[in-house]
Amino acid sequence: MTPVGGTSQSAKKGILERLDAGEIVIGDGGFVIALEKRGYVKAGPWTPEATVEHPEAVRQLHREFLRAGSNVLQTFTFYASDDKLENRGNYVAEKISGQRVNEAACDIAKEVAQEGDALVAGGVSQTPSYLSGKNEAEVKTIFRKQLDVFVKKNVDFLIAEYFEHVEEASWAVEALKESGKPVAATMCIGPEGDMHGVSPGECAVRLVKAGASIVGVNCHFDPNTCLRTMKLMKEGLEAAKLKAHLMSQPLAFHTPDCGKQGFIDLPEFPFALEPRIVSRWDVHKYAREAYNLGIRYIGGCCGFEPYHIRAIAEELAPERGFLPQASEKHGNWGNALSMHTKPWVRARARKEYWENLLPASGRPYCPSLSKPDDWGVAKGAAELIQQKEATSEQQLKELFEKQKFKSNK
Amino acid sequence: MTPVGGTSQSAKKGILERLDAGEIVIGDGGFVIALEKRGYVKAGPWTPEATVEHPEAVRQLHREFLRAGSNVLQTFTFYASDDKLENRGNYVAEKISGQRVNEAACDIAKEVAQEGDALVAGGVSQTPSYLSGKNEAEVKTIFRKQLDVFVKKNVDFLIAEYFEHVEEASWAVEALKESGKPVAATMCIGPEGDMHGVSPGECAVRLVKAGASIVGVNCHFDPNTCLRTMKLMKEGLEAAKLKAHLMSQPLAFHTPDCGKQGFIDLPEFPFALEPRIVSRWDVHKYAREAYNLGIRYIGGCCGFEPYHIRAIAEELAPERGFLPQASEKHGNWGNALSMHTKPWVRARARKEYWENLLPASGRPYCPSLSKPDDWGVAKGAAELIQQKEATSEQQLKELFEKQKFKSNK
Amino acid sequence: MTPVGGTSQSAKKGILERLDAGEIVIGDGGFVIALEKRGYVKAGPWTPEATVEHPEAVRQLHREFLRAGSNVLQTFTFYASDDKLENRGNYVAEKISGQRVNEAACDIAKEVAQEGDALVAGGVSQTPSYLSGKNEAEVKTIFRKQLDVFVKKNVDFLIAEYFEHVEEASWAVEALKESGKPVAATMCIGPEGDMHGVSPGECAVRLVKAGASIVGVNCHFDPNTCLRTMKLMKEGLEAAKLKAHLMSQPLAFHTPDCGKQGFIDLPEFPFALEPRIVSRWDVHKYAREAYNLGIRYIGGCCGFEPYHIRAIAEELAPERGFLPQASEKHGNWGNALSMHTKPWVRARARKEYWENLLPASGRPYCPSLSKPDDWGVAKGAAELIQQKEATSEQQLKELFEKQKFKSNK
Amino acid sequence: MTPVGGTSQSAKKGILERLDAGEIVIGDGGFVIALEKRGYVKAGPWTPEATVEHPEAVRQLHREFLRAGSNVLQTFTFYASDDKLENRGNYVAEKISGQRVNEAACDIAKEVAQEGDALVAGGVSQTPSYLSGKNEAEVKTIFRKQLDVFVKKNVDFLIAEYFEHVEEASWAVEALKESGKPVAATMCIGPEGDMHGVSPGECAVRLVKAGASIVGVNCHFDPNTCLRTMKLMKEGLEAAKLKAHLMSQPLAFHTPDCGKQGFIDLPEFPFALEPRIVSRWDVHKYAREAYNLGIRYIGGCCGFEPYHIRAIAEELAPERGFLPQASEKHGNWGNALSMHTKPWVRARARKEYWENLLPASGRPYCPSLSKPDDWGVAKGAAELIQQKEATSEQQLKELFEKQKFKSNK
Repeated sequence: MTPVGGTSQSAKKGILERLDAGEIVIGDGGFVIALEKRGYVKAGPWTPEATVEHPEAVRQLHREFLRAGSNVLQTFTFYASDDKLENRGNYVAEKISGQRVNEAACDIAKEVAQEGDALVAGGVSQTPSYLSGKNEAEVKTIFRKQLDVFVKKNVDFLIAEYFEHVEEASWAVEALKESGKPVAATMCIGPEGDMHGVSPGECAVRLVKAGASIVGVNCHFDPNTCLRTMKLMKEGLEAAKLKAHLMSQPLAFHTPDCGKQGFIDLPEFPFALEPRIVSRWDVHKYAREAYNLGIRYIGGCCGFEPYHIRAIAEELAPERGFLPQASEKHGNWGNALSMHTKPWVRARARKEYWENLLPASGRPYCPSLSKPDDWGVAKGAAELIQQKEATSEQQLKELFEKQKFKSNK
Repeated sequence: MTPVGGTSQSAKKGILERLDAGEIVIGDGGFVIALEKRGYVKAGPWTPEATVEHPEAVRQLHREFLRAGSNVLQTFTFYASDDKLENRGNYVAEKISGQRVNEAACDIAKEVAQEGDALVAGGVSQTPSYLSGKNEAEVKTIFRKQLDVFVKKNVDFLIAEYFEHVEEASWAVEALKESGKPVAATMCIGPEGDMHGVSPGECAVRLVKAGASIVGVNCHFDPNTCLRTMKLMKEGLEAAKLKAHLMSQPLAFHTPDCGKQGFIDLPEFPFALEPRIVSRWDVHKYAREAYNLGIRYIGGCCGFEPYHIRAIAEELAPERGFLPQASEKHGNWGNALSMHTKPWVRARARKEYWENLLPASGRPYCPSLSKPDDWGVAKGAAELIQQKEATSEQQLKELFEKQKFKSNK
Repeated sequence: MTPVGGTSQSAKKGILERLDAGEIVIGDGGFVIALEKRGYVKAGPWTPEATVEHPEAVRQLHREFLRAGSNVLQTFTFYASDDKLENRGNYVAEKISGQRVNEAACDIAKEVAQEGDALVAGGVSQTPSYLSGKNEAEVKTIFRKQLDVFVKKNVDFLIAEYFEHVEEASWAVEALKESGKPVAATMCIGPEGDMHGVSPGECAVRLVKAGASIVGVNCHFDPNTCLRTMKLMKEGLEAAKLKAHLMSQPLAFHTPDCGKQGFIDLPEFPFALEPRIVSRWDVHKYAREAYNLGIRYIGGCCGFEPYHIRAIAEELAPERGFLPQASEKHGNWGNALSMHTKPWVRARARKEYWENLLPASGRPYCPSLSKPDDWGVAKGAAELIQQKEATSEQQLKELFEKQKFKSNK
Repeated sequence: MTPVGGTSQSAKKGILERLDAGEIVIGDGGFVIALEKRGYVKAGPWTPEATVEHPEAVRQLHREFLRAGSNVLQTFTFYASDDKLENRGNYVAEKISGQRVNEAACDIAKEVAQEGDALVAGGVSQTPSYLSGKNEAEVKTIFRKQLDVFVKKNVDFLIAEYFEHVEEASWAVEALKESGKPVAATMCIGPEGDMHGVSPGECAVRLVKAGASIVGVNCHFDPNTCLRTMKLMKEGLEAAKLKAHLMSQPLAFHTPDCGKQGFIDLPEFPFALEPRIVSRWDVHKYAREAYNLGIRYIGGCCGFEPYHIRAIAEELAPERGFLPQASEKHGNWGNALSMHTKPWVRARARKEYWENLLPASGRPYCPSLSKPDDWGVAKGAAELIQQKEATSEQQLKELFEKQKFKSNK
């Protein structure tokens, strides 16, 4: 197979058209983590003002994912709701405005999508307003502000992603459905279910009932864990005799030690996750297992770099019949190492080698698992209420003390 | 300190002017590994034809390093010698030509350098010709072909980097010195010295005698190991009463288990190195220790992403008096986490937390150290001779057998 | 507190008298593993013919446990049923006889028990007959042969231990109850329950209904896991409004990676378990947590050496009011290190040091967790049927092949 | 081969007779660690008063080693010099006396040696007097007090073991040689040499010149490290054209992370070394490599239990022509597992399985290596001076502070 990137058509098939036809749709990877490492996103607020401030950086990342095989380019609108953009001292709402951030995101994604066979999906995610106790009407109003931009810019479909509570996710789906466009919905939950204890199966059912055509999980857990959650979602839908397409966009970090809240609780989040990054071979296994489970929308979330997405496309190339463009710079299962200068590296040019390798961490003074933070702070706790002003020194000091106390237990 | 990126001057100070004045010069990071992950470089040949094929991707990476604080943009001309570009089936020499690759690399680097306070350095690296037994005149002719481009494009200074043998490195320095421009030289060696057993101290002496104004190490080993090597180089120069500026550009991978040949021998090279990637906090320590050792040209090599370079600039901000532009998207020692939604993540907004964290690998079925390949194949062995045609199936099969045999021992 | 080993009384209080009075009863440790290391038990058959062949070795181990604080000396009659002693080529049934092995075990235990405040418990364990499909009458006949010896030798009470199936355990309890002596019953199960899927809570209920006054778990899992199982047993009893004393005798090996069948499935069983051995400080935590959970019969199983038992006695010394004799050779929480020659070792003479230490394995090329064998072979499978003749070469070869096949999956 | 334990002769061959004839002599294992776990030795002082207080426990351990294949029973006289027995509050010198401890040790060893083909060696070890600056005459007087007992009890030969300084070791050899009996000498040093920086090769030379017929290393390092040291000793002797038999008695703990002072400096010493304990298969490799290196007196030190010694005897059974008695309870390379109930355990009944297993620690929250204490306290430092009174609270407090300070660096 030579890399061709699929048919480059003038009139693209829609997302449901593809999935209904049994096609594999490859998602994209994680923007906030990738652009944080490139210097354009601030860890902490994690907001996407780079669409306005540094569009060339956002454009380049979209292009890399497209080239790696993505069939969907998500607008870089994660956490781009107005309430989030003004949270704890964030300047974006005031100095740039949520509307401009969302509009720029659409423009960039649409521009790059034209370079290949990719659809553009407008995305919304969970809001501080919900966590702070706002009601359904208020929260839906927040979502509609982003939706207005997506409709104006005429994106191909919509994604409600990264929801910890199925209640809020359902509100998001209902709001997005008002547009008439297809809606996908993913929650950042594991096998234990949402933060209110709703099981993955029940979450899936509620999302479909709210109007989602595609349901699944994203973020917070590694591929293995996400697939276990997807299995539960699938079983829940089957038990309820509901039909929906399945979608998974896991982390590219190994998180076997995570509790219910996922990688946010790991002590390494977000600045020391390096040793947990999955290899391309881990992604091969994930793609195959996701496919075997019946998932047809297969992508990634935080940590997924272009080469991880390419690994999905390469693993599923036999089913799809073509390789992505970026495979021109990659030998299948490492076979381009046959061009390496050193003979012992050429000897690694084969599937058996990489498939069975157990990579060392190079960190003999570090453990292999961590004990996640588990503060037991849930919706309603004062510490979770959003505030416009920056976190004060006094607030921080109290948190440091609490941390010390908890880690001694 | 607010990020200002240093003085943006019209007439930039030269590399020696800066170092002689005691300034800290921050190098850039690794191009081949970063662009391999982005889909533009093929692991195996590792050649830089992206300068012609995808200049926007190369440009963006230069820009990210500049923004992260780099004062030097190296032309992406690693392995861009003609003999390398036609090695083992590589199409670049024939279809593009070495000259075009080198010219495009210069153009891109110069364009981006104008956006900030950075110099452009033209770089050459070790050649297949040397390994295959070519003589001094032949090897120097190879270097001069790249040098001609650098002179024509008028780069600011020159770097001879990634040499395993001091003999070849010295030839490179001598060839580059013919231009009259300042020359820096780095070897990819560890404390055991070069492949012929020449000690780091002696290597440093020979490089200075060959004409290098700046000497040091790059690639092949982690920051700790590189600094141990640098200490030996420094002592060698002092014993010989020679003066030169010191430079280090280590890997961003932990390699405590490497033998003399460095990370090439690790079983994880090059497709499963993820768990070894250093964190930004590891880089803080490296930058401080490099500075304390008297090194003033401090950068990175393979694995160093823009955020790693930013960590050098942030650690040394007190000495330099300013932060790089990309620090506008980074809180010092994680303090932007004070803007995070979850209180236990806000509690991580401080130096003590990150400085003492021992990050888990999330891979409990993997070891912490590997046994490197150690085939004992040295210059002169038939398996190291270059060939123009691609590695044959038969050749590969023999290598696989040899690998199995060796790993059973 | 000075070590006194408790009251040395002429008329000892019985096991139920002690437990009813709220006393802590400390069990003993593991005989088969300890004596295997000393050279008197064969791993594989694991039968206790040392009682006849090397009584001095068995006597010495009893004495060490007594000295370490054990209030119960179990007769070394594990796997001493007649059907086990003639299994797969074992010579003991024919050359020595089960009766002699059991009688000698009682004699030795009673002799040592007189040296301190310890009771003697006669023990039976699961039988090959049950696994091979024998019926209730047949299996009970097996138990009664050992019971006859225990009655003749007049042991203080009886223990049915190491049962994987609650059905067989209940038969054992019923058989032992025929003697009129108090009966304790422990199963070697984890939180997932017995091999037929009966939950721990239900197992506990059935054992009490069968006549056991003391119920709990032994062997197969580490202290943490055993305590989780005990919690489920306790809850099961409470839900059924049944009263019984609780007892736990876990492994002294860390087994977080075990599946339902426990440490037998670990690749390291039984000859490479060393890195998993718990420290005395791990035992301190176990003893405290067991006590807090309401367990009052606290001992150990395989891997528990005398110093581990002493750690139980030292942790619970405040509640009991005295230390065991062997504490004359141990400083509480390491404080005898104040007598060490090296100052940095003297600095370790305190609780805070040992309590917080995360001990290294010294094995950087090994993983921290294993994938247990999981052959899915259950009662009824041909491979589980007992046979009198030794395993043939052909049978072994088939097993080796099966192992290779499974570990490649 | 059936276990026979070698020829049981009436007139035993002497140690030099055996070694001169090329026989393999198997040493015994570690008494202080084994008896600490059994409850008879106090960690901290580590003195051997159990010979008087609990002779049955010492006798049993001797017997186990004999049964496992030991050809030498060392008197349990480690640290039994008078100055050590009264150190830092130790009661033994005053309440029992050094003479009684040493006499009892000889009696027990001689009694057990008669049960098989083993010689009795009287042993002395390093003294607090030397560390506190006493002179040659004073230190030799200390050794002579133990020697008097050994001569009176007519042991077969003498061992000077566990010396950190070759100067003191040479004094010991000279003192012991006064008896006319053969003398073996081992130092607890690694490849870096003794505490004064004398290389292993030079140490070996000095010991032979002082009169030792057998030289080598014991304790402080794992088998791998000890064999590297032995290689240096052997080369030193060859360079000096001196002849001596070689002897090694390493730790049964993995210590790849140790510095010059060995396992004393590991944070886990002495109460959390469990994860480092070597398996019997590690010992097989050690025995084979020691033999290949030309070592013929092969034993163990701290951590070596009877089953470890048996592993030496089993590995070298082909060369020796017989197995030890304890092999009646052990299948070669695990083959007695063919008698196990579970088929997947029977599948482990072979060399290939155990030889290649990389055992997991079961401790995913722990690292694989530790950073040893490295206080830089050498002979002459006040903190190393011995004192008769117990360490005071104030002294301990100062040490705790120092420890905290150092571990933060």
